Formats: sequence, structure tokens, C-alpha cells
Amino acid sequence: MNHIEIIGFIAAFLTTAAFLPQVYKTWKTKDVSSLSLPMLFIFFIGILMWLIYGFLKNSPPMIFANSITIVSVFLLVYFKIKYGKK
Amino acid sequence: MNHIEIIGFIAAFLTTAAFLPQVYKTWKTKDVSSLSLPMLFIFFIGILMWLIYGFLKNSPPMIFANSITIVSVFLLVYFKIKYGKK
Repeated sequence: MNHIEIIGFIAAFLTTAAFLPQVYKTWKTKDVSSLSLPMLFIFFIGILMWLIYGFLKNSPPMIFANSITIVSVFLLVYFKIKYGKK
Repeated sequence: MNHIEIIGFIAAFLTTAAFLPQVYKTWKTKDVSSLSLPMLFIFFIGILMWLIYGFLKNSPPMIFANSITIVSVFLLVYFKIKYGKK
């Protein structure tokens, strides 16, 4: 692995590490009032496009980071639909 | 601009569009209680690394997206420090 990809993986770990606690917090508190469903959908499609872009650019850190993020955003969408009605 | 970079720019627009309302909302409401300063710092460093990675990979969409995001995160850090004490 070359130096460029190492920088990418450091970036991937940091941004993923900063995002996951948000997902965990939402899961624990079930407080989805501050989440907007249309915004989550836009974000989900955006992350999906980044994932495709990562494959096309042959970027392992982008594929890694966006794979984790897309699952997280999917969970947030699920929480919003499940708990948002209460 | 080739097809790969067009996909990247669509991704960049979508994820940036989903993130900016959060910054605007924080600015309007001055409610920073749900933001964690250490997490914002980790995110800031992460985005900085993605920006460097974007330059090294010659990726215009990554440079575009992360330039906007790093300014946004910097603003959130500023809001947190300014309004967090109240």
C-alpha cells in the first residue's frame, strides 16, 4: 500500500469514527426528532455515488469508508421510520 | 471532464447539500448541545486528510466537496466554542 492510500485510510478512520457515535446515540436514545428523512435520503444517495466513485477510481479507503457509512445511514433511515411515528 | 468525475461531482453535490442545512440550523438555533467538541475536532482532521487525499489522487470532486465541508465543520467548531458556554 502506498503513502497516498495510507493518508486516505487515516481520513477514512477519522471521519467514520466521528460519525458512528451519532448512529449509536440515535439507537440508544431513539430520538430521531433532529433527523430529516428527505435529508437522510439525499445523503444516502450521495454516499452511494461516492462508493461507486471509489470503485471507479480504484480507491480502497473510499470504498472502505463509504461502505461503513452507507450501512450507518441506512440504519438512521430505519430508526427514523421506526421511531419517528411515536 | 470524464464520466467518472461527473459521478463524483453528483456525489459531492448530494452529500454537501445534505450537510449544509445542519450548519444553517445550528447557526439559526444556536443549539450546540448535541454537538461534541472532541468529535468535531476528529471530524475536522479527518476531512483535512480527505482533502489532502483528494489532491494526491487528482480528484476534483473530492477537493470541491471537502473544501466546502471543512469550512462548514470549522464553523460548527466556532459555534460550539461560542455558544457552548451559555
